[in-house]
Amino acid sequence: MSTEILARHECFGGSVRFIRHHSESLGVPATFGVFLPEQALKGEKVPVIHLLSGLTGTQETFLIKANAIRFAADHGIALVAPDTSPRHTGIKGEDDVYDLGSGAGFYVDATAEPWAKHYRMESYVGEELPALTESLFHLDAERRGIVGHSMGGMGALIQALRFPHRWKTVSAFAPICFPSSIAWGQKAFDAYFGGDPAHWMKCDPTMLLRSGCRHPSTILIDQGTQDQYLADLRPDALEEGAREAKQSIEMRHHQGYDHSYWFVQTFIADHIRHHAKGLRA
Amino acid sequence: MSTEILARHECFGGSVRFIRHHSESLGVPATFGVFLPEQALKGEKVPVIHLLSGLTGTQETFLIKANAIRFAADHGIALVAPDTSPRHTGIKGEDDVYDLGSGAGFYVDATAEPWAKHYRMESYVGEELPALTESLFHLDAERRGIVGHSMGGMGALIQALRFPHRWKTVSAFAPICFPSSIAWGQKAFDAYFGGDPAHWMKCDPTMLLRSGCRHPSTILIDQGTQDQYLADLRPDALEEGAREAKQSIEMRHHQGYDHSYWFVQTFIADHIRHHAKGLRA
Repeated sequence: MSTEILARHECFGGSVRFIRHHSESLGVPATFGVFLPEQALKGEKVPVIHLLSGLTGTQETFLIKANAIRFAADHGIALVAPDTSPRHTGIKGEDDVYDLGSGAGFYVDATAEPWAKHYRMESYVGEELPALTESLFHLDAERRGIVGHSMGGMGALIQALRFPHRWKTVSAFAPICFPSSIAWGQKAFDAYFGGDPAHWMKCDPTMLLRSGCRHPSTILIDQGTQDQYLADLRPDALEEGAREAKQSIEMRHHQGYDHSYWFVQTFIADHIRHHAKGLRA
Repeated sequence: MSTEILARHECFGGSVRFIRHHSESLGVPATFGVFLPEQALKGEKVPVIHLLSGLTGTQETFLIKANAIRFAADHGIALVAPDTSPRHTGIKGEDDVYDLGSGAGFYVDATAEPWAKHYRMESYVGEELPALTESLFHLDAERRGIVGHSMGGMGALIQALRFPHRWKTVSAFAPICFPSSIAWGQKAFDAYFGGDPAHWMKCDPTMLLRSGCRHPSTILIDQGTQDQYLADLRPDALEEGAREAKQSIEMRHHQGYDHSYWFVQTFIADHIRHHAKGLRA
């Protein structure tokens, strides 16, 4: 199956596209969104930021709700937005709950049945999708950033800490920082890894810091003080882990802001600027 | 029934809220969205722009997809976003098609059964909602603007041309300019007015210009050249009507842009600036 352009929209002098392809990692067709700035359309190699969204999100969520495109266009940066899980895998119960299965891939490679065959989002967002988009468009593999929201923030932190050579820059909005300590993470990890705790620490930003993983750049994180999921996100654990690990982070706490994209859009310009600086865009 | 705040989100130093109230015009509960800039929260009277969205839209659509809030916050302007129709009126067939009934109020006051009792969006967006929001918040009734997209662009133009005293500034993205000449408008007007053509010209921007209606300001309109509905929108008819009527308009045609909010977000900053200037914000 070759790639199929489902939609194409002019936007800020560039192009927003939604593209379906057969994913080798996921074993099913997958859809992603991309914003190509004018420079990329003209054949210039541009830096790229990958956008990971949270539970229940799709390839549209971050692109529609974060208001990131005008700033990406300003800096001549491309954006790539994957879905949050494989879809229509045929796994029984896949669509039953919001926090496991479809819309809830947690950006991990499942090892336990029935998930192991398809739920391989770590490989998809970390390897297959960057390689695919860099083969299709004028994107610079040496200048890749990653940002995520909530579950996607966790995904971005995991990618950056375990695979620092893949990503030059990283940031997150209200990330799940310490998943192995809270219900969302325990439920997902228990299902995807079949109760094998050896896998857990590879998918937990706080545990990764404790085990020696680092990213060479400063990690920018924004967190609202009125976030309704604050107790599940545990930014305190990540801050402590980073302090002990001497990982450079800039954790900003914003008075009154909640977990929504109304919060994300308020601070997105700072994030794109953070990546632009690190990616020399 | 008093007003009920369904949701409240900090955003750009101000507040996005979704509020339900009993609408006298519509005879059912109605929900609207509002953005209040920091100045309004502090008790300063601020100018306000009303946002009308298109077919299938809700009170969320324009606020989520147009990326307008950062610019409204920059200028200290409030935003008010109504739904596109009454909901749950009990009228048979109300939810059956996308272009009539729910999601398709066309911003008119229906006169024919079964619609006449509830489908009174002209009164709702033109009178009830401005009065209600100005009683609830620190909004300046003397500094009101209106902008819309597609069916909402038509609504904004109708409001501005028929009731120029209500709105100091007006703009539109890809508005339906000549509804009585195309299938969408004919179907809706036929249903809502029961075949009485006397009502049609009151709800048609091009016909209003021909019949002597004017707005004292310059009307800003953005239109994409690749809009998939271009033949139904008839910007050419409005431009000709404005020229003959000596109505000042600035109609901009954007190469390659389509009908979507990817188009709207690209040019929203110019619209907020246009209103800010006219509203002295």
